[in-house]
Amino acid sequence: MEGVVDHLAFERNKAQFDVEEMKIVWAGSRQALEISDKMARLVASDPVFKKDNRAMLDRKELFKNTLRKTAYAWKRIIELRLSEQEAAMLRFFVDQPAFTDLHWGMFVPAIKGQGTEEQQQKWLPLAYKMQIIGCYAQTELGHGSNVQGLETTARFDPKTDEFVIHSPTLTSSKWWPGGLGKVSTHGIVYARLITDGRDYGVHGFIVQLRSLDDHLPLPGITVGDIGMKFGNGAYNSMDNGVLRFDHVRIPRNQMLMRVSQVTREGKYVQSNVPRQLVYGTMVFVRQTIVSDASTAMSRAVCIATRYSAVRRQFGSNNGGIETQVIDYKTQQARLFSLLASAYAFRFVGEWLKWLYMDVMKRLQANDFSTLPEAHACTAGLKSLTTSATADGIEECRKLCGGHGYLCSSGLPELFAVYVPTCTYEGDNTVLLLQVARHLLKTISQLGSGKKPVGTTSYIGRVEQLMRYRSNVQKGEDWLNPNAVLGAFEARAAKKVVLCAQNLSRFTNPEEGFQELSVDLVEAAVAHCQLIVVSKFIEKLQQDIPGKGVKQQLEVLCSIYALSLLCKHLGEFLSTGSINPKQASLANDQLRSLYSQVRPNAVALVDAFNYTDHFLGSVLGRYDGDVYPKLYEEAWKDPLNDSVVPDGYQEYVRPMLKQQLRNARL
Amino acid sequence: MEGVVDHLAFERNKAQFDVEEMKIVWAGSRQALEISDKMARLVASDPVFKKDNRAMLDRKELFKNTLRKTAYAWKRIIELRLSEQEAAMLRFFVDQPAFTDLHWGMFVPAIKGQGTEEQQQKWLPLAYKMQIIGCYAQTELGHGSNVQGLETTARFDPKTDEFVIHSPTLTSSKWWPGGLGKVSTHGIVYARLITDGRDYGVHGFIVQLRSLDDHLPLPGITVGDIGMKFGNGAYNSMDNGVLRFDHVRIPRNQMLMRVSQVTREGKYVQSNVPRQLVYGTMVFVRQTIVSDASTAMSRAVCIATRYSAVRRQFGSNNGGIETQVIDYKTQQARLFSLLASAYAFRFVGEWLKWLYMDVMKRLQANDFSTLPEAHACTAGLKSLTTSATADGIEECRKLCGGHGYLCSSGLPELFAVYVPTCTYEGDNTVLLLQVARHLLKTISQLGSGKKPVGTTSYIGRVEQLMRYRSNVQKGEDWLNPNAVLGAFEARAAKKVVLCAQNLSRFTNPEEGFQELSVDLVEAAVAHCQLIVVSKFIEKLQQDIPGKGVKQQLEVLCSIYALSLLCKHLGEFLSTGSINPKQASLANDQLRSLYSQVRPNAVALVDAFNYTDHFLGSVLGRYDGDVYPKLYEEAWKDPLNDSVVPDGYQEYVRPMLKQQLRNARL
Repeated sequence: MEGVVDHLAFERNKAQFDVEEMKIVWAGSRQALEISDKMARLVASDPVFKKDNRAMLDRKELFKNTLRKTAYAWKRIIELRLSEQEAAMLRFFVDQPAFTDLHWGMFVPAIKGQGTEEQQQKWLPLAYKMQIIGCYAQTELGHGSNVQGLETTARFDPKTDEFVIHSPTLTSSKWWPGGLGKVSTHGIVYARLITDGRDYGVHGFIVQLRSLDDHLPLPGITVGDIGMKFGNGAYNSMDNGVLRFDHVRIPRNQMLMRVSQVTREGKYVQSNVPRQLVYGTMVFVRQTIVSDASTAMSRAVCIATRYSAVRRQFGSNNGGIETQVIDYKTQQARLFSLLASAYAFRFVGEWLKWLYMDVMKRLQANDFSTLPEAHACTAGLKSLTTSATADGIEECRKLCGGHGYLCSSGLPELFAVYVPTCTYEGDNTVLLLQVARHLLKTISQLGSGKKPVGTTSYIGRVEQLMRYRSNVQKGEDWLNPNAVLGAFEARAAKKVVLCAQNLSRFTNPEEGFQELSVDLVEAAVAHCQLIVVSKFIEKLQQDIPGKGVKQQLEVLCSIYALSLLCKHLGEFLSTGSINPKQASLANDQLRSLYSQVRPNAVALVDAFNYTDHFLGSVLGRYDGDVYPKLYEEAWKDPLNDSVVPDGYQEYVRPMLKQQLRNARL
Repeated sequence: MEGVVDHLAFERNKAQFDVEEMKIVWAGSRQALEISDKMARLVASDPVFKKDNRAMLDRKELFKNTLRKTAYAWKRIIELRLSEQEAAMLRFFVDQPAFTDLHWGMFVPAIKGQGTEEQQQKWLPLAYKMQIIGCYAQTELGHGSNVQGLETTARFDPKTDEFVIHSPTLTSSKWWPGGLGKVSTHGIVYARLITDGRDYGVHGFIVQLRSLDDHLPLPGITVGDIGMKFGNGAYNSMDNGVLRFDHVRIPRNQMLMRVSQVTREGKYVQSNVPRQLVYGTMVFVRQTIVSDASTAMSRAVCIATRYSAVRRQFGSNNGGIETQVIDYKTQQARLFSLLASAYAFRFVGEWLKWLYMDVMKRLQANDFSTLPEAHACTAGLKSLTTSATADGIEECRKLCGGHGYLCSSGLPELFAVYVPTCTYEGDNTVLLLQVARHLLKTISQLGSGKKPVGTTSYIGRVEQLMRYRSNVQKGEDWLNPNAVLGAFEARAAKKVVLCAQNLSRFTNPEEGFQELSVDLVEAAVAHCQLIVVSKFIEKLQQDIPGKGVKQQLEVLCSIYALSLLCKHLGEFLSTGSINPKQASLANDQLRSLYSQVRPNAVALVDAFNYTDHFLGSVLGRYDGDVYPKLYEEAWKDPLNDSVVPDGYQEYVRPMLKQQLRNARL
């Protein structure tokens, strides 16, 4: 990673903390850092995994190249006998969406979570060895968010003991599943279970899609890719697919039967396995999404920070050296609040891992008491962190000025590959409305003495919070975690209570919910921001070794909280949680915090420990040698293969020579 | 445009206003509508201009295809003897960035604005016939915003009566100019004029770059394309270029000499032509950018609105028809505020055309009194409208859910092609700081009795505005334009005054300006939003014919203003311009306004009069026949050329068959 040149050495020398210790904090543990560092270097040093020119490949080349990388990665995983954790890390650093994401991330977990012991024993060994490749076929052309509205049918035929899978309408075509378009041999297909003359709603079925001999679709199956998606490279390496069934028959035992079964006679039976188990999987998936948000955000921030330290513009008095862009306060305000967000999301993601394990432990003990809260919390954090990250990546691109628009900056692809996260696994607005519903319920149950748990426990102090007035009197008071927590709790609690009061004026509560949904979304955001802030603060209550490490994190925590406060000032003021004078103090304090981050900025992004391969950005190079490499990259474009471009003779020359009238175009 | 199917007919029947009359309002006049309608249909009906599969073409194919379209468009312009206005419209509807944008938009105007009579007579006829093709080579690898920091040199050699153009460093390489990479024969090159032993700063020179015989770069010139940019299709049809000079000689008379000259002896002489003329060009260019913002925003809104009316999700009680997505308040809040912005930007753009003419008239009469204000105003509006539009396009994409991520939705390309507008012709943050500087100056001159003019004239009432308290008492009061204007004026004035007060605490004003730049940007935004709101209101004071047309625009104007008010609530509250109760009333009023727009939404986007060709979106089709066409489009992807994908034999099969160990990958 480090070469001879280091244009950023003077920045690195300024750092006031131990970067190596910060790397451990970022990675989660010394062991996690070692594994990720080893895997990152393994991938970066292997020519097969090169990302060069990815943006220039056409769809077919890109896809074939992805198949190659994926197969090669699997080969290396086997050869090196990598552990599950190492294998996942290696795939992560290959950094190209592929069918394996769905195979390992959705197909396998779905069988584990929803399959019976018997089904697991049959299918998992095949999947673990990749003797079959699976996808997760849920969404349809006409249905995404509303899973209960799916149209595909699975009708039980008691004569043959089979289910008949069918796509009754065009809109029932499966649409979007990754890995489906060209690769998967099997899929978990969600369809309406119809048996015994009744529609029992949506259930999962294991369906073979392609022949294991020649990879051709099985009879009755129409399957293909849904076409180009946003961006260069990006998700176009994934074969998101379309799938239609024409009365395709599968054995009865390929319905995922852990929670409910269909008997040989076609009777629908519920097992005594709690349905809530499904939520466990959701908590798990969304927890990984939050953790991925911190990765994506930190990548973008790393690129923008390093380039902002390299780039100079204005500020010289005739011939002197110009000012580093990172020294401008407008740049700092945008960049450092995103830097703080990257760390904030990292820690809340870490906490979510704990939450998931806690939920699973409780589920196994038949304790469902924390599940609704945990579910709402993960839904909300998924929404909050992914929206902020998508916006943050684009903001980082803009912070890189014109050059951020070049594919060689890495930022366009990072944005394009990231944005679907705001839509998949729950549309972010739909999720926030779920959070709002949970908050309203929590409030409404206070009267009956039900005590809010976990991240909603502050609502138990609602009467006190309704009277809350911040006692901040000078700028430094805002560095006190209690001042921050108080203001965020008061704002969130008051927003929720206000919504509840306004709702009570409607005779039809559901109508009221729809009518006030914009306010409800705001309340949910306020609640989720409080969670992130409070988990950051909790993290800092732990013992954190390393010279200056904790101090840096304290500064970032304050920046995260205060920049949110300034951004959502209207809510803090209108709820009376703080007053205009206190708002102004927060603004002043924020400026001083930016100055404190400034000398540490480059070291704070070095702590992410990203290789140049992973960053994939000329602007974000570790050595800061931006301009010569930008210049080099330019010449690699296919348009530069010839000095005179294709088309000159046919189209440009006749124009210049005034011979267009006779030209055949 | 209208076919047999019209899934949106029931929406169109609901409209409460005369759509044809609204089309005229949008276009600016009946004649403008007729021309644009004619040109749009001409382009849409011509197979050469098809946009099919643009996202799938590789760079070379895309570029060659663009050359073809450009030549063909020029041929048609000649054949049909189109007027200048018609030709510009035709190019606009071809809707693909190309070298001609720079030739007509920058090269020709630069010669017109900065060339002497003689130079204009020599070069303009060549340019008008496209016997030469020109670009505008200003920015360099190391310099964008800071034009005065450009490094390219033009050293006068009195021996030969020539300028020697040279690139002394790598960072002095010209970088970004559109049309430069592969096509332009000439360029306006900006370089530091050095003569008589002195550096006179940056001046423009006409430099021939390529041979008119064989299109090869002239001796001493290295030129090429800078590589792939953000997105599929998008700006990759443009040959943004890199250019280096190795002591290239040009005749002295190719320096643009309208404002200043170098004599035969090498003396630098200023002419008596006012330098301020340059600002006239800037006002012109930025005015077109504002008008383009309304186009881009309205395109995205048109797509998202129609699709939101087609798409249904949730809300059915078992088997009933689901709710149209456009009926959800969360969707309305996001979509209708952007719809209102599209109209708002349209009208402020129209007003800017007037402003430009007014400025030019004054310049010709040596009246420079309004120039600083006009310059600040256009800079600010460029920044405000382009940032809002870039964000708005992405918001519209998200409003289309998962399907918005497909290239066939048209939204990814629209976003990718639009975002550079936030950076070029003045980085949006840099521009806002210029506005802030102007506002501070305006405030500081109040004492000396200098009366603020134009869009800053409200600052003349600053004392009164500092005491302003809104007298809104019920929701409908917010429909009163004076209530809106008062609140926006008070907020802007108070923000500026606060900045000025805080600045006065610094002993070094420039240091203070840097330190407070985040607040200054906020003040500038507040000022610019006031301009847009007030120009919308002024527009509505005119007579607007057509049943219900004015009423619809009044609703949109209120939505624009009140949604800004809610978004920037912190500023309105902290400046005391409104109180929390009034904020809550604005929020309630906004909800009711959304309901009023709802039945008119589809008709309001129909009024943009966009053809399906121009929209280029399956989701935004006029007939709403979304799902069958999405399904059709999918099969066109190159990956679907074969059922079994390229790479299956080499990479997938060995994986499935457990034969990877021996596979060569």
